Amino acid sequence: MSQNEFSEGDLRNTGMALKHDREWDYELERIVEAVHERDAEKVGLQFPEGLKRRGPKVADDLRELLPENVTVMISGQPCYGACDLDTFLMKRTDVFVHFGHSPMKESEKIIYVPLFSNVEVAPIIEESLEELEGEDVGLVTTAQHMNRFEEMRTLLEERGYEVHTRRGDDRLTHEGQVLGCNYASADIDADQVLYVGGGKFHPLGLAMEHPEKKVVIADPVNNVVSVADTEQFMKQRYASVHKAMDAQKWGVIFCTKIGQGRWETAERIVEENENAYLITMDEVTPDRLRNFDMDAFVNTGCPRITTDDGPRFHKPMLTPGEYEIAVGNEPLEDLSFDTFHGTW
Amino acid sequence: MSQNEFSEGDLRNTGMALKHDREWDYELERIVEAVHERDAEKVGLQFPEGLKRRGPKVADDLRELLPENVTVMISGQPCYGACDLDTFLMKRTDVFVHFGHSPMKESEKIIYVPLFSNVEVAPIIEESLEELEGEDVGLVTTAQHMNRFEEMRTLLEERGYEVHTRRGDDRLTHEGQVLGCNYASADIDADQVLYVGGGKFHPLGLAMEHPEKKVVIADPVNNVVSVADTEQFMKQRYASVHKAMDAQKWGVIFCTKIGQGRWETAERIVEENENAYLITMDEVTPDRLRNFDMDAFVNTGCPRITTDDGPRFHKPMLTPGEYEIAVGNEPLEDLSFDTFHGTW
Repeated sequence: MSQNEFSEGDLRNTGMALKHDREWDYELERIVEAVHERDAEKVGLQFPEGLKRRGPKVADDLRELLPENVTVMISGQPCYGACDLDTFLMKRTDVFVHFGHSPMKESEKIIYVPLFSNVEVAPIIEESLEELEGEDVGLVTTAQHMNRFEEMRTLLEERGYEVHTRRGDDRLTHEGQVLGCNYASADIDADQVLYVGGGKFHPLGLAMEHPEKKVVIADPVNNVVSVADTEQFMKQRYASVHKAMDAQKWGVIFCTKIGQGRWETAERIVEENENAYLITMDEVTPDRLRNFDMDAFVNTGCPRITTDDGPRFHKPMLTPGEYEIAVGNEPLEDLSFDTFHGTW
Repeated sequence: MSQNEFSEGDLRNTGMALKHDREWDYELERIVEAVHERDAEKVGLQFPEGLKRRGPKVADDLRELLPENVTVMISGQPCYGACDLDTFLMKRTDVFVHFGHSPMKESEKIIYVPLFSNVEVAPIIEESLEELEGEDVGLVTTAQHMNRFEEMRTLLEERGYEVHTRRGDDRLTHEGQVLGCNYASADIDADQVLYVGGGKFHPLGLAMEHPEKKVVIADPVNNVVSVADTEQFMKQRYASVHKAMDAQKWGVIFCTKIGQGRWETAERIVEENENAYLITMDEVTPDRLRNFDMDAFVNTGCPRITTDDGPRFHKPMLTPGEYEIAVGNEPLEDLSFDTFHGTW
């Protein structure tokens, strides 16, 4: 997910975070059990950006429950998804807990605590029905609301809808789940998809990936119904591609985060373009790229950094597909949303 | 070294970088030889911040000299010293070249290219003699000017000075060499030390570590002689310690960079203070720490981030020694500069 993950539907700005804090399940018992089972002496905790400020409180609660000789460590690395594990801390702790996301890949070493939200979804779904057209509807949500997926489905079915769902691919844990970079669960036989969840980050990606479908947003966190509008995003993408068409020197970014690497893509571009330079990094930020005197960048890492944060960079930044258009290998009509499949 | 390494004597701002570019030795033959010897297919290049923009040109030159099947990769990670190796890239390349620093620890895997400067040192040393008092003088410099160390010594001896030099400890490669975090080479029997090199970053650290000595700066890059003045720095340190005296919640930073970790120090603080939280990260930046609701931080990583960048953080940040003063374990008079010893 991109660094803008929390810019829309950001819990910190809504007050929702505190209000519902006690209703979130940190699954401390599961962690304590794992510590005892493994005779662990070091426990690592990783939180995504919007939840980091809760880290010390969770550490306090855990320390009360754990033997004195156990050291609890909190990852201070930025984290934007289940693709973004702190592998340094993971390798150096006996129990490593990743909060806020569901597993991208199961591992005995990692305890994933998705932090299910207990916010009610029924009222906002009722309200969203006004935006639906016809009886076929796809249904998707995020890890935080997965615990209520069957409730969502039942509610829609009771209202007479034919609900289409699927599990996307092996990057996704659950049926109906979407990630910022993967909407394979919306590859269903319906012209509209209902997204139930907080913020616009996910439904905007969904609408870009499936431009032929109407994407209705039922946001139970901010208590608002809307329809995803990708116009601004698409304009930005076309503008970036056009700007990059004159580029001579290309920086090709290979992201070193465990779940964000597309090596074959990066290597192929560099092999085919003698004016392309391979640059490796974990956090892809405007500051870090400003050091490189390139005309444009192609980011083979997280597509949401490219699409959502792109305008913050000093030079155009494209997805691999957009790069092929900019250098003339593909026609402009082929511009599409960059998605990420598989794990590691 | 801190993120301010290039704020004083920054080559980018002086025009020196371009002027002397061709006089710097990138030692490409040595790299090409290693590639052939190891039948390497992947070559990784790492440059410190002030040299990163030269990366693509060095890659160009190398690609002309190397077989077609060799992939050259440039590290996009921030880099502030020989303590700060891109271990991800190092592990995934057959030849890994670190530019701009001398070895902190020898390794068969790594080629260190210190980038010796060919700027003349004699004229500025002549000029600096006016600031020297008495005949005993210590002599120190940085990796970039190490190639002229004997010339510096001879020049001083010819002028009648007794030149005191030593190799610091095993963190330092050469006799007379200083690092931003280590001035053991100035532990010599003289009341004054002549620092020959660019910028004020190193001599300021030297003067803080050895407050009883006069530190004369002969800067051949910016062509200026001055005397290190630590007053502003010391005021800031006292102010930070005072502010942190009321702190309840302490964030204890363990830096995960290969040469910046002081695990025992971090662990001891957390064990002794139940209101201390261990936070692990590589880049220690204001943005990353803003996510944590602490009253103060103690940074067991690079001391120069604490002393030079400290005021940029939202809460006081102290060195381990300053922490002991702030929590009342040591008297205020014991405030001293934090230095870093050993390797990894």
